[in-house]
Amino acid sequence: MPKIIRILLLNGCNINLLGTREPEIYGAETLAQIEERLTQTAAVSGAQLECFQSNSEGDLIDRIQQARGGIDCIIINPAAFTHTSIGIRDAIAGVGIPAIEVHLSNIYAREEFRHHSMIAPVCRGQIAGFGSQGYDLALQAALRLAGQS
Amino acid sequence: MPKIIRILLLNGCNINLLGTREPEIYGAETLAQIEERLTQTAAVSGAQLECFQSNSEGDLIDRIQQARGGIDCIIINPAAFTHTSIGIRDAIAGVGIPAIEVHLSNIYAREEFRHHSMIAPVCRGQIAGFGSQGYDLALQAALRLAGQS
Amino acid sequence: MPKIIRILLLNGCNINLLGTREPEIYGAETLAQIEERLTQTAAVSGAQLECFQSNSEGDLIDRIQQARGGIDCIIINPAAFTHTSIGIRDAIAGVGIPAIEVHLSNIYAREEFRHHSMIAPVCRGQIAGFGSQGYDLALQAALRLAGQS
Amino acid sequence: MPKIIRILLLNGCNINLLGTREPEIYGAETLAQIEERLTQTAAVSGAQLECFQSNSEGDLIDRIQQARGGIDCIIINPAAFTHTSIGIRDAIAGVGIPAIEVHLSNIYAREEFRHHSMIAPVCRGQIAGFGSQGYDLALQAALRLAGQS
Amino acid sequence: MPKIIRILLLNGCNINLLGTREPEIYGAETLAQIEERLTQTAAVSGAQLECFQSNSEGDLIDRIQQARGGIDCIIINPAAFTHTSIGIRDAIAGVGIPAIEVHLSNIYAREEFRHHSMIAPVCRGQIAGFGSQGYDLALQAALRLAGQS
Amino acid sequence: MPKIIRILLLNGCNINLLGTREPEIYGAETLAQIEERLTQTAAVSGAQLECFQSNSEGDLIDRIQQARGGIDCIIINPAAFTHTSIGIRDAIAGVGIPAIEVHLSNIYAREEFRHHSMIAPVCRGQIAGFGSQGYDLALQAALRLAGQS
Amino acid sequence: MPKIIRILLLNGCNINLLGTREPEIYGAETLAQIEERLTQTAAVSGAQLECFQSNSEGDLIDRIQQARGGIDCIIINPAAFTHTSIGIRDAIAGVGIPAIEVHLSNIYAREEFRHHSMIAPVCRGQIAGFGSQGYDLALQAALRLAGQS
Amino acid sequence: MPKIIRILLLNGCNINLLGTREPEIYGAETLAQIEERLTQTAAVSGAQLECFQSNSEGDLIDRIQQARGGIDCIIINPAAFTHTSIGIRDAIAGVGIPAIEVHLSNIYAREEFRHHSMIAPVCRGQIAGFGSQGYDLALQAALRLAGQS
Amino acid sequence: MPKIIRILLLNGCNINLLGTREPEIYGAETLAQIEERLTQTAAVSGAQLECFQSNSEGDLIDRIQQARGGIDCIIINPAAFTHTSIGIRDAIAGVGIPAIEVHLSNIYAREEFRHHSMIAPVCRGQIAGFGSQGYDLALQAALRLAGQS
Amino acid sequence: MPKIIRILLLNGCNINLLGTREPEIYGAETLAQIEERLTQTAAVSGAQLECFQSNSEGDLIDRIQQARGGIDCIIINPAAFTHTSIGIRDAIAGVGIPAIEVHLSNIYAREEFRHHSMIAPVCRGQIAGFGSQGYDLALQAALRLAGQS
Amino acid sequence: MPKIIRILLLNGCNINLLGTREPEIYGAETLAQIEERLTQTAAVSGAQLECFQSNSEGDLIDRIQQARGGIDCIIINPAAFTHTSIGIRDAIAGVGIPAIEVHLSNIYAREEFRHHSMIAPVCRGQIAGFGSQGYDLALQAALRLAGQS
Amino acid sequence: MPKIIRILLLNGCNINLLGTREPEIYGAETLAQIEERLTQTAAVSGAQLECFQSNSEGDLIDRIQQARGGIDCIIINPAAFTHTSIGIRDAIAGVGIPAIEVHLSNIYAREEFRHHSMIAPVCRGQIAGFGSQGYDLALQAALRLAGQS
Repeated sequence: MPKIIRILLLNGCNINLLGTREPEIYGAETLAQIEERLTQTAAVSGAQLECFQSNSEGDLIDRIQQARGGIDCIIINPAAFTHTSIGIRDAIAGVGIPAIEVHLSNIYAREEFRHHSMIAPVCRGQIAGFGSQGYDLALQAALRLAGQS
Repeated sequence: MPKIIRILLLNGCNINLLGTREPEIYGAETLAQIEERLTQTAAVSGAQLECFQSNSEGDLIDRIQQARGGIDCIIINPAAFTHTSIGIRDAIAGVGIPAIEVHLSNIYAREEFRHHSMIAPVCRGQIAGFGSQGYDLALQAALRLAGQS
Repeated sequence: MPKIIRILLLNGCNINLLGTREPEIYGAETLAQIEERLTQTAAVSGAQLECFQSNSEGDLIDRIQQARGGIDCIIINPAAFTHTSIGIRDAIAGVGIPAIEVHLSNIYAREEFRHHSMIAPVCRGQIAGFGSQGYDLALQAALRLAGQS
Repeated sequence: MPKIIRILLLNGCNINLLGTREPEIYGAETLAQIEERLTQTAAVSGAQLECFQSNSEGDLIDRIQQARGGIDCIIINPAAFTHTSIGIRDAIAGVGIPAIEVHLSNIYAREEFRHHSMIAPVCRGQIAGFGSQGYDLALQAALRLAGQS
Repeated sequence: MPKIIRILLLNGCNINLLGTREPEIYGAETLAQIEERLTQTAAVSGAQLECFQSNSEGDLIDRIQQARGGIDCIIINPAAFTHTSIGIRDAIAGVGIPAIEVHLSNIYAREEFRHHSMIAPVCRGQIAGFGSQGYDLALQAALRLAGQS
Repeated sequence: MPKIIRILLLNGCNINLLGTREPEIYGAETLAQIEERLTQTAAVSGAQLECFQSNSEGDLIDRIQQARGGIDCIIINPAAFTHTSIGIRDAIAGVGIPAIEVHLSNIYAREEFRHHSMIAPVCRGQIAGFGSQGYDLALQAALRLAGQS
Repeated sequence: MPKIIRILLLNGCNINLLGTREPEIYGAETLAQIEERLTQTAAVSGAQLECFQSNSEGDLIDRIQQARGGIDCIIINPAAFTHTSIGIRDAIAGVGIPAIEVHLSNIYAREEFRHHSMIAPVCRGQIAGFGSQGYDLALQAALRLAGQS
Repeated sequence: MPKIIRILLLNGCNINLLGTREPEIYGAETLAQIEERLTQTAAVSGAQLECFQSNSEGDLIDRIQQARGGIDCIIINPAAFTHTSIGIRDAIAGVGIPAIEVHLSNIYAREEFRHHSMIAPVCRGQIAGFGSQGYDLALQAALRLAGQS
Repeated sequence: MPKIIRILLLNGCNINLLGTREPEIYGAETLAQIEERLTQTAAVSGAQLECFQSNSEGDLIDRIQQARGGIDCIIINPAAFTHTSIGIRDAIAGVGIPAIEVHLSNIYAREEFRHHSMIAPVCRGQIAGFGSQGYDLALQAALRLAGQS
Repeated sequence: MPKIIRILLLNGCNINLLGTREPEIYGAETLAQIEERLTQTAAVSGAQLECFQSNSEGDLIDRIQQARGGIDCIIINPAAFTHTSIGIRDAIAGVGIPAIEVHLSNIYAREEFRHHSMIAPVCRGQIAGFGSQGYDLALQAALRLAGQS
Repeated sequence: MPKIIRILLLNGCNINLLGTREPEIYGAETLAQIEERLTQTAAVSGAQLECFQSNSEGDLIDRIQQARGGIDCIIINPAAFTHTSIGIRDAIAGVGIPAIEVHLSNIYAREEFRHHSMIAPVCRGQIAGFGSQGYDLALQAALRLAGQS
Repeated sequence: MPKIIRILLLNGCNINLLGTREPEIYGAETLAQIEERLTQTAAVSGAQLECFQSNSEGDLIDRIQQARGGIDCIIINPAAFTHTSIGIRDAIAGVGIPAIEVHLSNIYAREEFRHHSMIAPVCRGQIAGFGSQGYDLALQAALRLAGQS
């Protein structure tokens, strides 16, 4: 029986406001809707998606650490933590699980301080600017990465 | 019956040390004393003040998010988070409630790294350098802002 | 008989255009109206307000120097001089009178070059972003500062 | 009969070396293989893919200009031109066709000068770090973008 | 009877991964092993060691605040928070307890962004690059500092 | 009877030295000669030219403010104030009259500090490096701008 | 018989889109219309205008080199190459023909990266922000420059 | 009969406060006392000293311009204008009279923004940090410079 | 029979002007003369020199790519492309042929923007400042490099 | 018989003033006293300490080079050379002996230019801020390092 | 009998070339001539001048250290060491003797890297640009400083 | 009888370690071997080579100064002094002897701080990256330079 691929979907601060906060930038879909859709897509591919969102950097670091030994790939939208969190960076590097960074908006078309990511250098790749479709694209990439490992 | 104005007073990390920590910079009044005084002042104007302090950025973001739908104005002293927290910035911008930034000390007369605020651009205004009186001034500005909305 | 507190209200270049210039940024009230209102407010507190506006840095420096020996507190909106005038900074430091910096707009939400103030480090505090109400808030702070000296 | 979606795939300098040049960074697939695979994928979705590669910035600008009036979406890997070409940026902005930026490698994990893209701000989104799979992901995003217009 | 010296050992985010995470950089000893060894060493000198690790900046600030009134010296490895946390800096300065900064790796031989410490200026000294032996050296320094106060 | 177009020609500090100061950079014509020539050229087009020069930033700001309600276009050579005067910038933006910036010398071929203009962003255009002919070119542009308004 | 003045009008990348591309920035006139108008104006002054546009930096350099021995003055709108092309700069300096830089838009009121010109220091002067009228102004300046040589 | 050497002593803003303003930095002597002493010293050497102080940059520029044709050397303490005034710099360069820059305090031991002088590059030399004795030293240097011309 | 060493001599934009352009900087020898001399020198050592010059970055990249499989060493004077061309850099790195960078002038004694080379880090070495003799020196180094491979 | 560990203690410029120079920063112990104490401590561990101090960078480089073949570990306080000496850095890297950097004061709490060390990246670790106790701590670390090699 | 004032004149690297090296910048007088003249001037004031020049930073530091206990004032032209030597800076600060910095040329009118002095902040004052007369002026200042101590 | 050309070969700090220090960067040849080989090569051309190496900047400056009047060309590998020594730069400029800078390694492919040379701007040219062959190439260039003078 083939091993079930486990993928962790992490979302950082304020992503729980999705669908209500500045929809012209972030889209109208809620996080719950996105998580449900991705869970079903993953299931079709025989993978299992686990979802976690927090406004606290520490909780996200805790969750990344717990991923060791079970999760095959991490999809993370670090949101505001993208630009400052060395802790999340170190956690991803520390657990040694391939990770994919996702941003709903095109961060390179926004304020200067959103152009630099502390997380990107320890991820396999980055997808930015496609709204919630970005998670779908990341899921495909994750399935391939997990299948390769 | 006129609508009761609700104002949220947020204080960031180490503000709970007020009155004991470096009093030559921050003054001798405790946070509890300030909160009580402001609550009474607000009540005189028919407004209701809610107070929250935390040393955790994530808790402050949670509290700002919960303010949606009820709070008319936020008064926030982000303290050390002033200079780094994109998460608090995004939360304030996300909930769409007018906010006022307060600093006890004149941050422009201190270390270079305290001169820049990540929060100020999404606030209506900033008051800095007047010790705990700064909260009183912010309360007046908040009452006017809330009355206009 | 108690000493009458004397407060000097200084406004820098282009503030005389107030009420006509870019009202979406600076508000619709004229400088004369603001000065009259503040003068009355000061009188209620037994204080005397002196007002001066100039488009010339040199005139403002002259006026600050003349404040020695009589003025208890200076409220200054240096306007465009905020970001470049070391002369006004040195004058305030030189006369040794407590000063409060006021800005009508939230300078931290505007162009990058408006984010830095040469004047702020020699003032007691700064109030920015509350339109003409900022002067009222500064007056209260000035009355307290003058009362303490 | 539904309109046939036309997508233009552009590749900048040295991408024609793909499969032979530094395979540990860029992968072993040749550009011809990628173009063929994507053309078939596009056809399945009823779309038509046009492919162009050049080592000359001017040729790429010419090709982007010719896309007006026919192409629904541009997928572009500007390669070395990513970091310096204002001309390609202006061409994309000038023709008004939605564009997607693709990078084979994770440019944020490489030399400092590869971290900044002149092109990204005028694109809808960016995909980086997934090797040739990045084109597949971009094609999906392009099909959706083209379907929306 | 001589006063018992109390020393607080604080460790920031991802230090709980010690012994498993990138051992070529951080060594093979676990945090529990280090804490036990140091506790015994402290006991030999008649001192009491209290240990705390968290992935949350807020929890570390809380713990530093609670140290007032009992702890004679703080040994802190702020890990990723080293480079960004003004909150931890302010907490250490606020409680007025002498502190020693420790880093397992030689942060000056790593990425550029790890070269600057927000914490160091409010500490008595810094020890970096000696792996877990750094804690032992810090303990000796702490015992002397505590003995002097 | 057609409305008479009124154009204001402003010259900043040291331009009154024209014809005597560093002629290899600034040319041999005096300011009076230039003003007379331009006045005649304007008259031919049915326009009226008003000329003002000062070494004081404040006087220039005063003159710009007085232009409201009568002047259709401002031609300004801010000279040394080009690089530092936020006050002149704010005045031009404040009066809402289209303005044209002129420089006698090619400021981009001189010292680094002359390469940046604080005034240019609020002007319609800039002409630099053509000696006194630059005023003639600016006059033509001004006549067109004034005719369009 | 007087020598016929020969002037070369060069336009860089994307200027061939003129009249269709972002007309709110660049105006509605096409390049062909501008070239025809200027050619007639030149003819009236007994001068001959040669026109060349290319999206390739190399072609522009070739054309500048060919100007030696015949062209009396170059009018160049380097467009996107303005900010990066050392090659065009060196070509202009190398052929020793006086050159005039033109920009349709006010580059100083646009993105930061458009504020600096690599070409300006080797030109006689620069005209920016007057739309297609800028070419007319440049032609006048060129006629004078050519007449002086 | 030998030509009488004429020397102009210029002092910028706030120097008129000398003797009363921050005496620990600037000394206790008043400007009038210094001017009188220097006038006498000059007279002994058969030179004539003219003194001028202003808080206005424009007045200082006017005075420098008037020095043409009569003054042999300028001694200038530009005070706060030192660091920002391109106008004074251009005036000194424009009149072509040798100038000496004086600072009462050691500007290199004060705030960062006082370390750079816009004026120094167009002066013959600079004397800083010797209090009012600096003027005496400058006078000696001026007498020699004037004697050489 | 020993393998014939093949060396490619590449020259970037404006080098075809050699001998006529700014001879005080670049010397009086033409490129054709240099190429002929080097070809003969190479022949003496049993090597074959191929020469190519272009003003287009794309053509140079094409030529570098074609060098694979035949050329043993590249000598390149990238001229103006030195400072900006990531494409030439990537091409050199991509073909894996040892390369030597040559500059006629001492680029470190010229304008600031000529001090940095994008190409140097992927070359074996750099020779600058010896005029056309630099090519001779590079040829010697190339012969040794090619002999070692 | 076990090999005797040899440790070299190097001190840079002005350390010979120890005990007399700015004792509030550097402590009251003289260098001779420190060297004697450390020599005894080393002897207890069966190690031999060699001490050298110089105000000349060249002498320190000479001494480091001579350490090859005999010294097991270098303890170095480069003092002022810390921030500028690439020569000492290269010497340490060149001899291949493990080194430990010591600073008496907390260099991170002093002037900006003392925050960066040229030496640290080639050392095993750094100890700063513990006064002369820093040498004792370094000696312990050195004994362990030497024991491991 | 009054105490004899002792003054130390220090000159850094290449000053021994004085009179022969770039005389248009540094003047034609030799160092020996300057030292002799100053020695005589000092003697007239009852002071004793000691002179020392070296091309080695270490020797200069040695000489400054030896000045303790005897020298009342140091006059130093650090020459090239001005801009880089923290060691000389620390030595001057360490011995606690008032020092005066002298430069023959106007360092602020030369290359950018000569504008900043590491030494100036620990000196009483600085004299630059007066050729060898600068030493005479410094001697006067030194005599006054020494007389005050 | 023709004049014998005299060439001085200078090597800075740590070059005496050549052949033993980091041979993968610097090669296996010793300095003595290189000096001997070059001396013979020079002799063949009728030139005389003098060699000097020192780890002290001061000694190198001394040696450069002594070269006046006899040496026709200097070949210098300043090693670590390359990036910081203004003293060596000034010495070379002061003696007026043409100089050639040599680096064994390609300094542009190493750490950022090795990319900038203080010495290069006063040399005729620079040769970097060819190991000890760089000295041979420099010798050829020196022979030509000396022959021209």
